[in-house]
Amino acid sequence: MSTVNAVQSPAVGNRLILPESRIPTNWYNIVADLPVPVPPVLHPATHQPVGPADLAPLFPMALIMQEVSPERYVPIPEELRDMYRLWRPTPLVRAVRLENALDTPAHIYYKNESVSPSGSHKLNTALAQAYYNKLEGVKKISTETGAGQWGSALSIAGAFFDIDIDVFMVKVSYQQKPYRRSVIQAYGAAVTPSPSERTNAGRAILAKDPDSRGSLGIAISEAVEVAVSDPDARYSLGSVLNHVLLHQTVIGQEAVDGMAEIGEYPDVVIGCVGGGSNFAGLAFPFLHRTLTEGQQTRFLAIEPSSCPTLTRGPYAYDFGDAVGMTPLIKMYTLGHDFMPPGIHAGGLRYHGMAPLISAFVKTGHIEPRAYEQRPCFEAATLFARTEGIIPAPETSYAIRAAVDEALAAKETGEKRVILFNFSGHGHFDMAAYDAYLAGGLENHKMSEDDLQKSLATLPQV
Amino acid sequence: MSTVNAVQSPAVGNRLILPESRIPTNWYNIVADLPVPVPPVLHPATHQPVGPADLAPLFPMALIMQEVSPERYVPIPEELRDMYRLWRPTPLVRAVRLENALDTPAHIYYKNESVSPSGSHKLNTALAQAYYNKLEGVKKISTETGAGQWGSALSIAGAFFDIDIDVFMVKVSYQQKPYRRSVIQAYGAAVTPSPSERTNAGRAILAKDPDSRGSLGIAISEAVEVAVSDPDARYSLGSVLNHVLLHQTVIGQEAVDGMAEIGEYPDVVIGCVGGGSNFAGLAFPFLHRTLTEGQQTRFLAIEPSSCPTLTRGPYAYDFGDAVGMTPLIKMYTLGHDFMPPGIHAGGLRYHGMAPLISAFVKTGHIEPRAYEQRPCFEAATLFARTEGIIPAPETSYAIRAAVDEALAAKETGEKRVILFNFSGHGHFDMAAYDAYLAGGLENHKMSEDDLQKSLATLPQV
Repeated sequence: MSTVNAVQSPAVGNRLILPESRIPTNWYNIVADLPVPVPPVLHPATHQPVGPADLAPLFPMALIMQEVSPERYVPIPEELRDMYRLWRPTPLVRAVRLENALDTPAHIYYKNESVSPSGSHKLNTALAQAYYNKLEGVKKISTETGAGQWGSALSIAGAFFDIDIDVFMVKVSYQQKPYRRSVIQAYGAAVTPSPSERTNAGRAILAKDPDSRGSLGIAISEAVEVAVSDPDARYSLGSVLNHVLLHQTVIGQEAVDGMAEIGEYPDVVIGCVGGGSNFAGLAFPFLHRTLTEGQQTRFLAIEPSSCPTLTRGPYAYDFGDAVGMTPLIKMYTLGHDFMPPGIHAGGLRYHGMAPLISAFVKTGHIEPRAYEQRPCFEAATLFARTEGIIPAPETSYAIRAAVDEALAAKETGEKRVILFNFSGHGHFDMAAYDAYLAGGLENHKMSEDDLQKSLATLPQV
Repeated sequence: MSTVNAVQSPAVGNRLILPESRIPTNWYNIVADLPVPVPPVLHPATHQPVGPADLAPLFPMALIMQEVSPERYVPIPEELRDMYRLWRPTPLVRAVRLENALDTPAHIYYKNESVSPSGSHKLNTALAQAYYNKLEGVKKISTETGAGQWGSALSIAGAFFDIDIDVFMVKVSYQQKPYRRSVIQAYGAAVTPSPSERTNAGRAILAKDPDSRGSLGIAISEAVEVAVSDPDARYSLGSVLNHVLLHQTVIGQEAVDGMAEIGEYPDVVIGCVGGGSNFAGLAFPFLHRTLTEGQQTRFLAIEPSSCPTLTRGPYAYDFGDAVGMTPLIKMYTLGHDFMPPGIHAGGLRYHGMAPLISAFVKTGHIEPRAYEQRPCFEAATLFARTEGIIPAPETSYAIRAAVDEALAAKETGEKRVILFNFSGHGHFDMAAYDAYLAGGLENHKMSEDDLQKSLATLPQV
């Protein structure tokens, strides 16, 4: 009897799951290793640097202190590390079947964050944020969500810590992904399509455009407004801010550990970027080695051509939300009232970018790249049929880049080690796959006109 | 600073993932340990015992030999064991947060089969069946699916082994779970709602009832008809048959190994039953210890009150499908043209039961129990909010029983060790949760009239 391998099927790759004892004990804070300091965050009215007290209506003090911390390592509380054991360490997988399909000499690895109960990396920070809110007696947390990955994660955290969760979900995603709403509700949280009539911010947007599809910026405005109007409530953000990126560094620390165990080191580290947290979570611990030990690694931040923050936006001060309630942040931005088209990677439809990622794009350590959505779904479908897991639309951008890097290595005959963040599964995004498979998924590229119109709204600082 | 534990949150339980080296090397065949032989399978026309040759149009010979094998252990081919590493060994988790919510002295463990790429245990046998079909040159496999867990799993296997997959999906599930169809298509397989106009069986059913919701029995008839009419095609079944249950014993063998590592042994082993494969997969390796070493363990097979095969059906010869194309099997059955109501646990809507499980229910080794669907969703929601994972509706039946066993242990103050099979996640079943949370999920209990009417169709053997 012949073996199937001989007939056609390549073996699966290694799936390394480190023992629980190797869940990191600290978060890694790249602020300690910045080549140049990040410009300060400014008060939206006075344009003066904000202090911790300015942020107190929004966040518990422990998170504010993390936001401004200069310490290289921030200890992970034991209770949280214990909770991480629900799904961490996550698998580090060599995608041998994908490599074979591409016939590439490259080695492709992915860190599989989709195995968390919420289906993405977002739970790493959701539990951390809920934990610190709980410690300070917060009863309710308001937040925004795009595709729903973040809203799902914070809803689980709310259920675990007995905190009410109030989610504003970008309307176009609410409509595209009805079952993400169901997930959030199954965990016991409330969810409102945004823009809504519940807030001044929402009503103002709807007055201008009753058919508004919503944006992450608008949903942030609504969630912030709800938080500041209730003394027992705080606000939570799923990306962008320093403390959020900090929490995600468990991903990259495990990946550094795992790659060392395997005996390879990545030549290229890849992640998709919306606000930047999954990318930073994987990349920063490797970037640490570049900054402190001179390791040669390329870092690719992949964004949609329809929301090309890093590839076409200026590095400038802008609001984090749509209506100007948040502090001003120095970052790459398309302008805070930019309305991205309703592409399926709802988590990437954000006008700005994490200031820490922006700073490293500015210094050239991080290389941005933009893709349209069809080639990304093509790569995602290939991934599903070779590696078995259906990727989130956001994740498909990272996969496209990994595939292109592997094909480039094939061209040059080079053994390139590629590592990307498999940030989430696409179980609640199947309508997008339906559209792609039916040939109906449109590409969108931002026009120069739209870009200039949007940039005209940047605040003068 | 107080700790969150002191405030409110219990620690998560242990999540044991065995190393890859402990993926079982053999499947365990309980036929070798049967106290009394299982009655033979009979030809549908002649009522004589069928031989391997009779089954050759349906299955590759390697699977037929497994179906009739008397050997206690059947080696798992290395190529398959290698593929199992994509997600196996699966986690064995102590549900400490659920225990705390129930305030029970019981220890509740679950074997988490939902971590497979297809989202359930079904991939264990899907890859095995595709492997043996590939070895014998089969180009296409037809099959049925209820909730879609099986169709998804076989579609992945088809993508991995380059075999065309043709899925007949029970119409009510096709309508309730549109994104399961999308999943099957994303993996490259074809899916047809059943009953369909594609087959004589489907056309006959539709002629009698144009609005037929379909059933697993009808979908099996259609898939069998497609397979036998194409010499390059074979048929594949996701449950019921000996070889399918055999492949699933990787679950229970890992659980026996894991429980020993933890240092506990289950007093109760629980699984939901439709055709019986996830239950058997977990239970049989433990039942082996009961049969050969006198271990005292209760085995609970949980079914819906709306499809009460084990609790209200007779032990009799019946067809495996709706129109009488399959051999006659001695099993608990509600009659082959029983049309179950459209409950959300589509995988449990089957009129019959695996003959091996039926035999052990007959001998009293396995204890059946039936639940209506609302209390199961109640337990599933509690599970989601404590353990973080949203269960498949099928799995919710096992969870309900585990919860009830834990509450009974609380009554008596007894430390009971409970182990259940977390057979799959509910990511494609959110419409059911929507209905439950909105208060609109109906209970269904089979009436005595319906039962008698259905049993009147049993063949005279």
